[in-house]
Amino acid sequence: MPVQPRDAFSSPRFAQPATFMRLPYRTDLTGVDIALLGVPFDGGTSYRPGARLAPREIRSQSSLIRPYNYFQKIAPFDRLTVVDHGDVDASPISLDLAYESIERAISSTVSAGAIPVVAGGDHSISLPILRALARAHGPLALVQFDSHIDTWEQDFGSPYFHGSPFWHAVKEHLIDPARFIQVGIRGPMYGADDFAFQQEHGITVRDIGQVHDGGIAATIAEVRRVAGGPTYVTFDIDSVDPAFAPGTGTPEVGGLTSDEALRLVRGLAELDLVGCDLVEVSPPFDGPGQITSLLAANLLFEMVCAIAKRRQG
Amino acid sequence: MPVQPRDAFSSPRFAQPATFMRLPYRTDLTGVDIALLGVPFDGGTSYRPGARLAPREIRSQSSLIRPYNYFQKIAPFDRLTVVDHGDVDASPISLDLAYESIERAISSTVSAGAIPVVAGGDHSISLPILRALARAHGPLALVQFDSHIDTWEQDFGSPYFHGSPFWHAVKEHLIDPARFIQVGIRGPMYGADDFAFQQEHGITVRDIGQVHDGGIAATIAEVRRVAGGPTYVTFDIDSVDPAFAPGTGTPEVGGLTSDEALRLVRGLAELDLVGCDLVEVSPPFDGPGQITSLLAANLLFEMVCAIAKRRQG
Amino acid sequence: MPVQPRDAFSSPRFAQPATFMRLPYRTDLTGVDIALLGVPFDGGTSYRPGARLAPREIRSQSSLIRPYNYFQKIAPFDRLTVVDHGDVDASPISLDLAYESIERAISSTVSAGAIPVVAGGDHSISLPILRALARAHGPLALVQFDSHIDTWEQDFGSPYFHGSPFWHAVKEHLIDPARFIQVGIRGPMYGADDFAFQQEHGITVRDIGQVHDGGIAATIAEVRRVAGGPTYVTFDIDSVDPAFAPGTGTPEVGGLTSDEALRLVRGLAELDLVGCDLVEVSPPFDGPGQITSLLAANLLFEMVCAIAKRRQG
Amino acid sequence: MPVQPRDAFSSPRFAQPATFMRLPYRTDLTGVDIALLGVPFDGGTSYRPGARLAPREIRSQSSLIRPYNYFQKIAPFDRLTVVDHGDVDASPISLDLAYESIERAISSTVSAGAIPVVAGGDHSISLPILRALARAHGPLALVQFDSHIDTWEQDFGSPYFHGSPFWHAVKEHLIDPARFIQVGIRGPMYGADDFAFQQEHGITVRDIGQVHDGGIAATIAEVRRVAGGPTYVTFDIDSVDPAFAPGTGTPEVGGLTSDEALRLVRGLAELDLVGCDLVEVSPPFDGPGQITSLLAANLLFEMVCAIAKRRQG
Amino acid sequence: MPVQPRDAFSSPRFAQPATFMRLPYRTDLTGVDIALLGVPFDGGTSYRPGARLAPREIRSQSSLIRPYNYFQKIAPFDRLTVVDHGDVDASPISLDLAYESIERAISSTVSAGAIPVVAGGDHSISLPILRALARAHGPLALVQFDSHIDTWEQDFGSPYFHGSPFWHAVKEHLIDPARFIQVGIRGPMYGADDFAFQQEHGITVRDIGQVHDGGIAATIAEVRRVAGGPTYVTFDIDSVDPAFAPGTGTPEVGGLTSDEALRLVRGLAELDLVGCDLVEVSPPFDGPGQITSLLAANLLFEMVCAIAKRRQG
Amino acid sequence: MPVQPRDAFSSPRFAQPATFMRLPYRTDLTGVDIALLGVPFDGGTSYRPGARLAPREIRSQSSLIRPYNYFQKIAPFDRLTVVDHGDVDASPISLDLAYESIERAISSTVSAGAIPVVAGGDHSISLPILRALARAHGPLALVQFDSHIDTWEQDFGSPYFHGSPFWHAVKEHLIDPARFIQVGIRGPMYGADDFAFQQEHGITVRDIGQVHDGGIAATIAEVRRVAGGPTYVTFDIDSVDPAFAPGTGTPEVGGLTSDEALRLVRGLAELDLVGCDLVEVSPPFDGPGQITSLLAANLLFEMVCAIAKRRQG
Repeated sequence: MPVQPRDAFSSPRFAQPATFMRLPYRTDLTGVDIALLGVPFDGGTSYRPGARLAPREIRSQSSLIRPYNYFQKIAPFDRLTVVDHGDVDASPISLDLAYESIERAISSTVSAGAIPVVAGGDHSISLPILRALARAHGPLALVQFDSHIDTWEQDFGSPYFHGSPFWHAVKEHLIDPARFIQVGIRGPMYGADDFAFQQEHGITVRDIGQVHDGGIAATIAEVRRVAGGPTYVTFDIDSVDPAFAPGTGTPEVGGLTSDEALRLVRGLAELDLVGCDLVEVSPPFDGPGQITSLLAANLLFEMVCAIAKRRQG
Repeated sequence: MPVQPRDAFSSPRFAQPATFMRLPYRTDLTGVDIALLGVPFDGGTSYRPGARLAPREIRSQSSLIRPYNYFQKIAPFDRLTVVDHGDVDASPISLDLAYESIERAISSTVSAGAIPVVAGGDHSISLPILRALARAHGPLALVQFDSHIDTWEQDFGSPYFHGSPFWHAVKEHLIDPARFIQVGIRGPMYGADDFAFQQEHGITVRDIGQVHDGGIAATIAEVRRVAGGPTYVTFDIDSVDPAFAPGTGTPEVGGLTSDEALRLVRGLAELDLVGCDLVEVSPPFDGPGQITSLLAANLLFEMVCAIAKRRQG
Repeated sequence: MPVQPRDAFSSPRFAQPATFMRLPYRTDLTGVDIALLGVPFDGGTSYRPGARLAPREIRSQSSLIRPYNYFQKIAPFDRLTVVDHGDVDASPISLDLAYESIERAISSTVSAGAIPVVAGGDHSISLPILRALARAHGPLALVQFDSHIDTWEQDFGSPYFHGSPFWHAVKEHLIDPARFIQVGIRGPMYGADDFAFQQEHGITVRDIGQVHDGGIAATIAEVRRVAGGPTYVTFDIDSVDPAFAPGTGTPEVGGLTSDEALRLVRGLAELDLVGCDLVEVSPPFDGPGQITSLLAANLLFEMVCAIAKRRQG
Repeated sequence: MPVQPRDAFSSPRFAQPATFMRLPYRTDLTGVDIALLGVPFDGGTSYRPGARLAPREIRSQSSLIRPYNYFQKIAPFDRLTVVDHGDVDASPISLDLAYESIERAISSTVSAGAIPVVAGGDHSISLPILRALARAHGPLALVQFDSHIDTWEQDFGSPYFHGSPFWHAVKEHLIDPARFIQVGIRGPMYGADDFAFQQEHGITVRDIGQVHDGGIAATIAEVRRVAGGPTYVTFDIDSVDPAFAPGTGTPEVGGLTSDEALRLVRGLAELDLVGCDLVEVSPPFDGPGQITSLLAANLLFEMVCAIAKRRQG
Repeated sequence: MPVQPRDAFSSPRFAQPATFMRLPYRTDLTGVDIALLGVPFDGGTSYRPGARLAPREIRSQSSLIRPYNYFQKIAPFDRLTVVDHGDVDASPISLDLAYESIERAISSTVSAGAIPVVAGGDHSISLPILRALARAHGPLALVQFDSHIDTWEQDFGSPYFHGSPFWHAVKEHLIDPARFIQVGIRGPMYGADDFAFQQEHGITVRDIGQVHDGGIAATIAEVRRVAGGPTYVTFDIDSVDPAFAPGTGTPEVGGLTSDEALRLVRGLAELDLVGCDLVEVSPPFDGPGQITSLLAANLLFEMVCAIAKRRQG
Repeated sequence: MPVQPRDAFSSPRFAQPATFMRLPYRTDLTGVDIALLGVPFDGGTSYRPGARLAPREIRSQSSLIRPYNYFQKIAPFDRLTVVDHGDVDASPISLDLAYESIERAISSTVSAGAIPVVAGGDHSISLPILRALARAHGPLALVQFDSHIDTWEQDFGSPYFHGSPFWHAVKEHLIDPARFIQVGIRGPMYGADDFAFQQEHGITVRDIGQVHDGGIAATIAEVRRVAGGPTYVTFDIDSVDPAFAPGTGTPEVGGLTSDEALRLVRGLAELDLVGCDLVEVSPPFDGPGQITSLLAANLLFEMVCAIAKRRQG
């Protein structure tokens, strides 16, 4: 049987250096199926910073994860080798240097045969990840859970920031817009033409009104309809309502509940996931219970289970 | 085109002295359609204080507001001149003096032709606002979102406090009880006769059970049925559940979600709103994410949009 | 008329030493129907501690409770004598000594003719309470609201901890497994055989998916179908979602809303309740609004009302 | 032997409804030497509110007080009967009504033969206390530890607020200005003539520079030189630096350390203290450790010991 | 008389949009002597971010500043025109673009004849400020209060970050190393050769041991001995101990007290100050009392007074 | 050269799973000179819990430690091999089982030739550590920095808790009372006979008054006079004032400053240290800056340096 989390009945959950889901820390990816990876970079943030601190806090809160997924009916660590592969040592000062480090790290993960499941960092990190993955897999389907569209072109004259990754990903042909769906969109916007890019490129948008009115099952069906082939999932925690995820940089009221978020990710189990990220957790804006990082840890676990589920066949 | 919020792509949202929605601060109301106004008074509070600190925090959190309302499909600042008119300099020591200042400030806002949209302060501030508005418009319809009825007669022998504004507003004929609806009422109460006043005066009550069981659309229909003519909206943030709005003085569990709150306010777009307030936000009891003030900022934006929507015709 | 809470119109809610629901503190239980009792013990906690601090914080937050339950339509303190009976002076160092103190205190409460309604403390306290109650009433029905099953056998080789009370309660015949229902179960688990104990003993499980999909009314019906005869209710606050109850030791995302929790407890009104507890509130992990203790106070009030309701006949 | 605090080796410090220093709560003052009394009123606050919540939090943090004062070498509860006399039920809405309640409560304490040691509340509460005490004892000496002079005449046209108690106390001849000393004064002020009142009335001021440069022993000597006869001590927690006392309404940087504060109060042991207060603790602005309330509890204990010390002779 | 802060006896300190010291917000600098300016940039931070949020929080906490400096015996606003000049709209994404904006803004402030007193931002902002000032005044003397030397050459291959401003300032001849003194240095370092740069360039270092052992007066004398001619003062709040200034990005234990910090800045009054900054305040890491921003506001006020004092002659 | 911390100029301090001082995590102690070890146990706590969470938080805050000690003039990692040896997997439920695990782990550390430098945990953990060390080294000298004497005999009838380790250590002859010194003692106590044990056994006490009045140098001299031979150092963080160390379980006001604490530990450099612990840090009671854990990390670093210094000769 592959590596397992420490046994909580003989090693307290709060003991030992914190790793993702209390799995072993491994720099060598030989034989590894899924590499849990932190990208502690928030240099692309336009409002509240702090996402650089998320990988460590998510590691800490993931101590509550147990090895069996009751709702997906799967014990992923029995089937797949999953490890904590550490963090990308991205420069906190230069987005350009950080992008290089991130792309290099993901490329090397993919080369080693492991699927990267990434804890950000702000949303700007998705672009270099997609660059690495698209090189390996070709243009990807993209499932984006988010309150913001993140398809703006620039900020303060800089092309890259946490609001532009998917503008560039489309322009760089890293993702196939016809297989790109955005779920949970809401909030005040800049203007009626904010969706011009989506319309031009044939990107599917399912706003929070449609999610709430149509229901989770219909949303999952829509996701499955649009996505297909090698698929990347990016989960911006601000798709969730601030009540359930206060610890984030650009919160938007009126979002998903934690239950809806969990069920949406479970619904990805049939897709061919080649990588996932969970971004925009900002621990300094969470409360003492750190419920945002706890939710993030659970969503990462659901991603791992969704991958394991498909492998199971 | 009227004044616009600062452009977030060239001035960071967290930069510059905080004003409501990053709009200009103006003491002169000439040509202004909507005056955003703070009333930092909490001398009417019977439990946790702190609402005096709300206008500043709501200003700060309103930095995330963008100029287009995706769900109401309107860009209010393109149609109406909306400014930050500053705060009423109400005495923190004397409720009587504070009431005078508030009434005077609202009267002068109305005289200048601007609709006041007010960030409190505790709920006691609604009475002097209603006094000023009723003088200009006659008895008003009142839509109150609240967990508490706020129609008690006194507290510790004092007539005015945050639990009595609407007893006095009815008694002073500032509002028309037949056009008065209370939405979201719940929580432990004092006795079975707490609603005697409502029954005597023909005030409509829609408690949280009715809201949840009947749904938001039916509640909006009921609000529109009851209200009519010049209408005032008072939104006590404690109508929302403490999970979504922990930063308040007398929280009541089992309340509205943020999504329900937003949709209820959007439902007011067809009414003839002559003034609005959002009260009882208490920042010291919020967490580091200040999600209560963020929700308050969004609700104030929805009020502005509802007014703009009707003006649009 | 029995003892009443202090009158909030002449004694501020935040004044005076905090007692449960602002009721008098009484060590003598003569003539008392319901004894509100704290058990500030968290020596059975396997993750975040702090539940020892809950009784004091719940007392403080219960200051907002008013004497009339609007939804259950009852004024419990008019019908029953309810007092704050203080805390069990349980050793914080030794679980064995603490168990002795708790069992002794509950036995003496029962002997005095009062129903104990207990604020924990971690979930390990339910076992000595059940020992005392089962001695008086025979094997009990048990309604458990929880995200965890708490039927593990041991932890680190110790038989008693907050994850094992109901394994022992079944083994010691304190509860009748056929009249035992667990509501709200969820979260990652240890394995597919986690429910073997439940299956072996015929314990009913209603997981959170069933609660959410079937609805609250159906869940209440199921609870009433299973329970019957002398019944104990144990409410682990972690059955509620961390958004509504962040202040707890082993939070699980995807749980009950506060409204669902309140309605579930209201649904117990027809049962023959011989005791109740509310456990696992951990104030240090709550935010400054202390919304978890506030919810706990309201749930304890609903329990008191459910008991009063049945007494009313 | 008089009443003692609960024994911490058999009743946990965090257990039972919190009373001052874990002493019994007594409404009857017969035979009582010192009445510990809360005055949860903050209606005189000009900046951050919250002092109304101090008596409860100070009670809670005073659980760490043990019965023997190592530095004063005295066990006060062996010599004097000290009890928690509860709080004054002051109106939170009306300063005038609150002043009446406070003066009445202190008068009745004095009539019963007990010395009041009071936990505020904001600094406005000292005036009605002084009114009651001066009626019994004649004009008092006053030792004020404070960063602010609190001898302004009015605020917003109201005579009474937390910055004016000693202007009125001098004008009403409640205190003898020649026996009045202010210790720890500092911070930005309004103008060079802020001390005109002090000069006119012959009030002694020892600013923080003098305290730090001259040393604590010299300051104590100066206090003893000025004060004499029946003496009142008022300790505004903002005399202490915000590092040691962040939880206060109008903090001033550059203040006393906790050690200096403790030693200054110990230095009062030879005075004829007829009453004491500790004011301006505001728990919502303290951190999770609530170190301000803890310091306040210790300062109140030092006051009790100083009184006991003199009684000891 | 020049512009004054709002009168706190008729406008509450917590009212109105927050500006520095409640002074008017002015974009036009005609006739202005001192421009209080925010630079909300933290893109040069290598550890905890958040300094971008400091200008707003310092504005808010500066509401407690009163117009007369009791210890410097001066009313600066009576002598000089001091205004809130707003913030530099620096890009949060690109340090290079931010540096351009900052340098341009300071140059234009200097051109208008105003002395910039700046609230950062992280320490990287001092370099573009020095560039602008050195262009106007020639090589400057520099007084740096700091726990870190900030003369490293690069970070992750990038030349500019918050640890390198003074390496570049020396290399670019913006400051005269012979007139450069570093005060308060301490903490674990990288190696014995960390001070090679200081020795090579003849920079004076006064570490915290020397400050504490030699005393504040001797340190001020040393500062005055080294500095001379046009002088810039940079105050990194982490020179202060975390007890007094917890809200900072790279805290170092064992630092200055608030009283020492205030006295050190007061000691600058005889220097020819051409600009000042106060950097590295990070509000998310402060407690609810925000004592770090309060201290920062007071230090900025002391700087303003030191400038006014010299002008006074 | 032995193992070094990660290079902060190429791996961000906040990146990677947190280990003590960013040193490698090693379970194998071959060739290791100092084993940094966590003991996350707080089952001996009589007041606020939470020390079980300290090792992880101290690891996180120790990320700021740099490899050179400027004041001790030593680069310890150049001379000694220092690693993070992980945590002792102590049962959180049973103090007896925890004691066994701790003693076993320390014995095995000592057998491997490494000096244990331990981050607790509450003060009860010192006893099993001393048992293991005394077995290897014979009766030890003990230097205890603490506000409490911790020589009580029992609590609630249990012999072991965080107030009794040194009573047992003396009784079990693990330490030599003539070489045992307690530094920083203060706070309210139980009675005049609290020091009977000290007097009976010839234990030296230097209370906080003596430390402050005599000075740090004299205290260090006294420590060196008393201690000698194989010496254990136990540093209870509550010896430090709550302003500098709010995150602790039983805080006592009036304590050491951070600077005094650092200098006291530096003064141990000439002693023959065979083990050290730093206990009673409780992260949930610290503020968002986590300054208590930061101080703890620095004190642990000073301990490591003191050991390295003596080895250096």
